Amino acid sequence: MEGMLKPGSLKDRTIIITGGGTGLGRSMGKYFLELGANLVITSRKKDVLDKSADELMKETGGKVLAVTCDVRKYEEIDNVIKTTEATFGQIHGVLNNAAGNFISPTERLSHRAFDIVVDIVLKGTYYTTLAAGKNWIEKKQPGVFLNIVTTYAWTGSGYVVPSACGKAGVLALTRSLAVEWAKYKIRSNAIAPGPFPTEGAWSRLLPGELVEKFDPAQRVPLKRVGEHQELANLAAYLMSDYSAYVNGEVITIDGGEWLRNGGEFSHLETIPETMWDMIEKGRGK
Amino acid sequence: MEGMLKPGSLKDRTIIITGGGTGLGRSMGKYFLELGANLVITSRKKDVLDKSADELMKETGGKVLAVTCDVRKYEEIDNVIKTTEATFGQIHGVLNNAAGNFISPTERLSHRAFDIVVDIVLKGTYYTTLAAGKNWIEKKQPGVFLNIVTTYAWTGSGYVVPSACGKAGVLALTRSLAVEWAKYKIRSNAIAPGPFPTEGAWSRLLPGELVEKFDPAQRVPLKRVGEHQELANLAAYLMSDYSAYVNGEVITIDGGEWLRNGGEFSHLETIPETMWDMIEKGRGK
Amino acid sequence: MEGMLKPGSLKDRTIIITGGGTGLGRSMGKYFLELGANLVITSRKKDVLDKSADELMKETGGKVLAVTCDVRKYEEIDNVIKTTEATFGQIHGVLNNAAGNFISPTERLSHRAFDIVVDIVLKGTYYTTLAAGKNWIEKKQPGVFLNIVTTYAWTGSGYVVPSACGKAGVLALTRSLAVEWAKYKIRSNAIAPGPFPTEGAWSRLLPGELVEKFDPAQRVPLKRVGEHQELANLAAYLMSDYSAYVNGEVITIDGGEWLRNGGEFSHLETIPETMWDMIEKGRGK
Amino acid sequence: MEGMLKPGSLKDRTIIITGGGTGLGRSMGKYFLELGANLVITSRKKDVLDKSADELMKETGGKVLAVTCDVRKYEEIDNVIKTTEATFGQIHGVLNNAAGNFISPTERLSHRAFDIVVDIVLKGTYYTTLAAGKNWIEKKQPGVFLNIVTTYAWTGSGYVVPSACGKAGVLALTRSLAVEWAKYKIRSNAIAPGPFPTEGAWSRLLPGELVEKFDPAQRVPLKRVGEHQELANLAAYLMSDYSAYVNGEVITIDGGEWLRNGGEFSHLETIPETMWDMIEKGRGK
Repeated sequence: MEGMLKPGSLKDRTIIITGGGTGLGRSMGKYFLELGANLVITSRKKDVLDKSADELMKETGGKVLAVTCDVRKYEEIDNVIKTTEATFGQIHGVLNNAAGNFISPTERLSHRAFDIVVDIVLKGTYYTTLAAGKNWIEKKQPGVFLNIVTTYAWTGSGYVVPSACGKAGVLALTRSLAVEWAKYKIRSNAIAPGPFPTEGAWSRLLPGELVEKFDPAQRVPLKRVGEHQELANLAAYLMSDYSAYVNGEVITIDGGEWLRNGGEFSHLETIPETMWDMIEKGRGK
Repeated sequence: MEGMLKPGSLKDRTIIITGGGTGLGRSMGKYFLELGANLVITSRKKDVLDKSADELMKETGGKVLAVTCDVRKYEEIDNVIKTTEATFGQIHGVLNNAAGNFISPTERLSHRAFDIVVDIVLKGTYYTTLAAGKNWIEKKQPGVFLNIVTTYAWTGSGYVVPSACGKAGVLALTRSLAVEWAKYKIRSNAIAPGPFPTEGAWSRLLPGELVEKFDPAQRVPLKRVGEHQELANLAAYLMSDYSAYVNGEVITIDGGEWLRNGGEFSHLETIPETMWDMIEKGRGK
Repeated sequence: MEGMLKPGSLKDRTIIITGGGTGLGRSMGKYFLELGANLVITSRKKDVLDKSADELMKETGGKVLAVTCDVRKYEEIDNVIKTTEATFGQIHGVLNNAAGNFISPTERLSHRAFDIVVDIVLKGTYYTTLAAGKNWIEKKQPGVFLNIVTTYAWTGSGYVVPSACGKAGVLALTRSLAVEWAKYKIRSNAIAPGPFPTEGAWSRLLPGELVEKFDPAQRVPLKRVGEHQELANLAAYLMSDYSAYVNGEVITIDGGEWLRNGGEFSHLETIPETMWDMIEKGRGK
Repeated sequence: MEGMLKPGSLKDRTIIITGGGTGLGRSMGKYFLELGANLVITSRKKDVLDKSADELMKETGGKVLAVTCDVRKYEEIDNVIKTTEATFGQIHGVLNNAAGNFISPTERLSHRAFDIVVDIVLKGTYYTTLAAGKNWIEKKQPGVFLNIVTTYAWTGSGYVVPSACGKAGVLALTRSLAVEWAKYKIRSNAIAPGPFPTEGAWSRLLPGELVEKFDPAQRVPLKRVGEHQELANLAAYLMSDYSAYVNGEVITIDGGEWLRNGGEFSHLETIPETMWDMIEKGRGK
C-alpha cells in the first residue's frame, strides 16, 4: 500500500500528534510529513520522542518538533501549543492519538487502574482539545481535530472496559464539538481502527501464546490485519481540506470486524482464571 | 399516570440509588418502595438525604436507609455497600443516577469544570459499579445495574460537552459489562430520559427567560414533557426480574425528541454571547 | 416468568396482530387478551387462524377475531381494518409481526426469493401501517404501532440478507412516523428480539444437526434463550399507555447477544457448501 | 475543491454507476474517468444517457458506455453486466446511485407511491448487487460495492418515509454483504451525503419559495452545502484500493447536519396543509 493523496496535500500545515513517537501515531505522522506538513510529536518519554523525531526527519526530509508532555497535565499541553506556535507559527490540526489500555477481567482491576486509562484517554483528549480549541477561537483561526477511537466505543467490550469508557467519551466529544465549534470553522472527526499491529503493543497486551490463539486476523471478514499506510491514508484525508465537508463523523477501518463480532475483546471470556493470574504476574503488578 | 407493575414486584429487593434524595432519583425510589423494595439513597448532603428518607418512609411505609456518600470517593461507596448489607442483607440492584452538568459554550469552561462533571458522572458510576460488582462476584450473588444516561450520549451535544463525554462513557460501561459480567448473572441496562422536569433543575441550568424560550416540550414530537411516574415505570421494569432477558440495552423515553432534533442542546447556538455573560454572572462564578 | 402488568392494563383495547396465529405473535396476543384486550389475528392460512382464535378464546376468555389476510395486498389489509371496526369499534393498536425469512448464502438466492421476503416484511408492514394510520388520522383517533424487527436491522447479518433489508426498512418506518405522526397522537415503537424459540421455526430454518451446532443459547451472554412471556411483557408495556412517552424507540431483548456477536447469523460462514446443498434440498426447492 | 487522489488511481478500472447520467452520479463518474477508469452509466432515459456519455468522454478523454436500464428489472441489469464485460472485460466496481423520492406527508401517499420509491431504491439496489455479485463470485473476481444512502437511513425522517425505508434497507444490505462476501474479496461500503445541490433536484422536491425557507445550508453546522468534488473525492477513495481495509462502513459527508438536526426533513412539519395542497397540484398528480 502506498500513499494516496497528491504530493503536497498537507504542505505547510502544522499538525500536533499526541503520542506521536511510536506505533500508529508515528506512522500517520510520517505520512503527514511526506505530504509536506510540519509535525509536532509529544510523549512522556523524552528519549523515545527525540529518537523518533530524528528518524522521521531523516526519512522524510520534513520538520519535526518533539515536545515532552503528559496529556493529563493541562499546563504541559498549553506548553506544547506555545512551543509549536513559537517554532512553526499557526497550528492547523491536532491528532488525539495518545492512549492507554489494560486487557483484564474488569473485576480484577482496581478503581485506580480504571482511572489511569480514563485519565489518559478521555481527560488527555479533552484537555488537548480544550487548549487547542480555545487558542484557535481566540485567534480566529480555523482548525481540524482528528481523534483515534475504537469500534468498541459504541458497542462496548468486555475485558477492556476502562478503554471502552474513555474512548466512548472521546467519540461524544468529537460529535459534540463538530456541531458546536463548526461556527468557528473548527472541524472534528474520528477514526475507529480495527487491528493494526504495532511492534510490542499486542505482546504487551497479551502474552505470545494468547496472541496466537486470538489471532485478530481470523476475526476480520477480510481475514487480515490492517497496514499502517491504510490508516495513514485515511488520517491524511481527514486532516486535509479534501474532507472539508466531513464533520462529526467516525470512520471505521477494520475490514468489517465489528459488524461480524460485536465488542472487539469480549471473546476473551474463554481465557481461564489461571491464565489471567499468569498474565497479571507477567505485567509485574 | 399510575404504577404499572403488579403489587409486590420488587418485594424484599434491596436497591441502592446514588443521588436518590431528590428529583428523578427520588421519584424512581419512591415507586420501588411502593413495589415492596428496601431503598438506600445516597448524596453528599446529609440533611437533604435524611429529610427525603423520612418523607419516603411516611409516603410509602417502606424502609429507607440514607447514607452520605461522594461517588467520587471509592471508600465512601464501599461504605454504602457495607452499611446496606449490615442493614438489609443482600443487595439486589444499583441505580446509578448521581450526575452533574453545566450548560455553557465549551470554550468558556475551564478544564477543571470539565473534570468536575466527568468525575461525578463517569468516575462516580464506574466506582459504584466496580464496588458493587466486585462484592456480588465475590459472594456469588446475582445483581442488576441500571444507569441513567442521556440521548446525547450517542449523538453528542453542544453546550453540555462534559456531560456528553461522561454519559457516553457510562453507556459504554453498561454495554461492556452486560456482556462481560453476564456469566456472573449480573445484568446491566440504561435509560436515556428526555425532558422530565424536576423542581429547580432546569432553572439551575437556565434562567427563567431562557427556559421559556427553549421550552423543551416544543422540541418533543408528542409536544409534552415526561411525567416522573412514566420514568419510574420503566425503571422498575428494568430493575425487576420481568426484564431478565433485557441486557446491555439503553431504552430512550423522550417522546421522540432526539430523533427529531439530534443533539439535545445544540439549538442553544442562538443564544448571544452577551446572554451567556449574564448567565455566568447569575451562577456566581 | 409470569405477566407483569396490573390486571386490566389493556382493558377494552382492540389490537390487531399480523401473523398473530402462531409463534411469538400468538404468545403476545394471548397476553394482551389476559390483560383485557380484544384481539384481531391475521394470516394467509384460514384453518390455522381459526384454530388459534378458538384456542385463545378458550384459554383466556377474551374475544378474538380471525381475518384472513395477505399483508402484501393492500385491499386485504383494508378489509381487516373495516372488519375489526365492524366487530369491535375503534382500533387502538397494531402489532406488525408478520414476517418471512430464508437462511442461505446470498449468492444462492434468486432475486425472486429476495422479493418474497422483502415484500412480506417491509411492504407488508408499510401497507398495514399506511392503512391503519390513514384510518386513525381521518377519524382523529390516537393509536399505537409496535413493529417486530431484529438486532441485525442495524448491524446487518450474513445469510439472512433479505430479512435484514426488510427489517431495516421497518425500523426506519418506525422512527420516521414516530416523529411525523406524533402530532396525530400516534406512537410508533419496535422490539428487536434475540433468540426466542418457536415450535418449528428454527427447524424450518436449519436442519436438526445444525441447530445443535449453532445452539443460539451459547451465543447469548446470559447463556439461555428467551421465554415467550418475557417478550409478551415488553410488548404489552409498549402497547399500553404506560409507555406513552416512549416513541421512536427500538428495544432489544436478546440477553446481550448482538453486543457480543454482531450480525446474528454471520457465523454461519462455517457451514460448508455441501451442507447448504443438503439444506436447499430439504427445503424442497 | 480539486481532485485529491494521485493521477491514475483508478486506471483501467471498470465501474458501473446506476443513475450515472445526471446529478451526483455524473459528478462521481466524471472524477472516476479523470482518474483513469472506464465508466458505465445507466438510466431509463436513453437520450439523457447518451448525451451525458458524449459530454463525459469529451470532458475527460475517458471511455464511457451508456446502457439503458430500469433497475427494477433484473434482466436489464444482467444485460448491463454482459454489455459491460463485452466492452471492457472485467468489472471492478459498482456504484448503486439510482434513487427516487417524494417529499410529502406520509398520509397523503398511496401505497403505490410507496412502492415506486422502495422499488427503485431498495429492489433496484439489491437486484444490481445480486447480479454483479453472483457474476464476481462465479468468475472468482474481486469487486467493490459503493452504495449511496442518506443520513436518515438510521434516524428515519418524516416527510420522506418511503425513501427512508428503502435507504435503510440498502444500508443493511451493505453491512450484511460486507461480512458475508468478504471471503470472495468483495467489499461493500456506503456514503451518506448531506445536502449537495443538483440542478433541478431540490426544485423538483420543493417549490422555489420553500427551498428558500428551508435553505439546507442553514441547517448545517458548517453553514454551507457540499461541493460535488467533495463527494467525488470520497467516492473515489472508497472505490479505489486505497480503502481496501474499509468494509461495511457508511461514511457521512454532511458538514455535521444530522448530528445537529436529527431526521433531515422532519422540520417540514411547519408547512401548513394548504401549502401541501399546492405542492401536490404543482406536481400534477
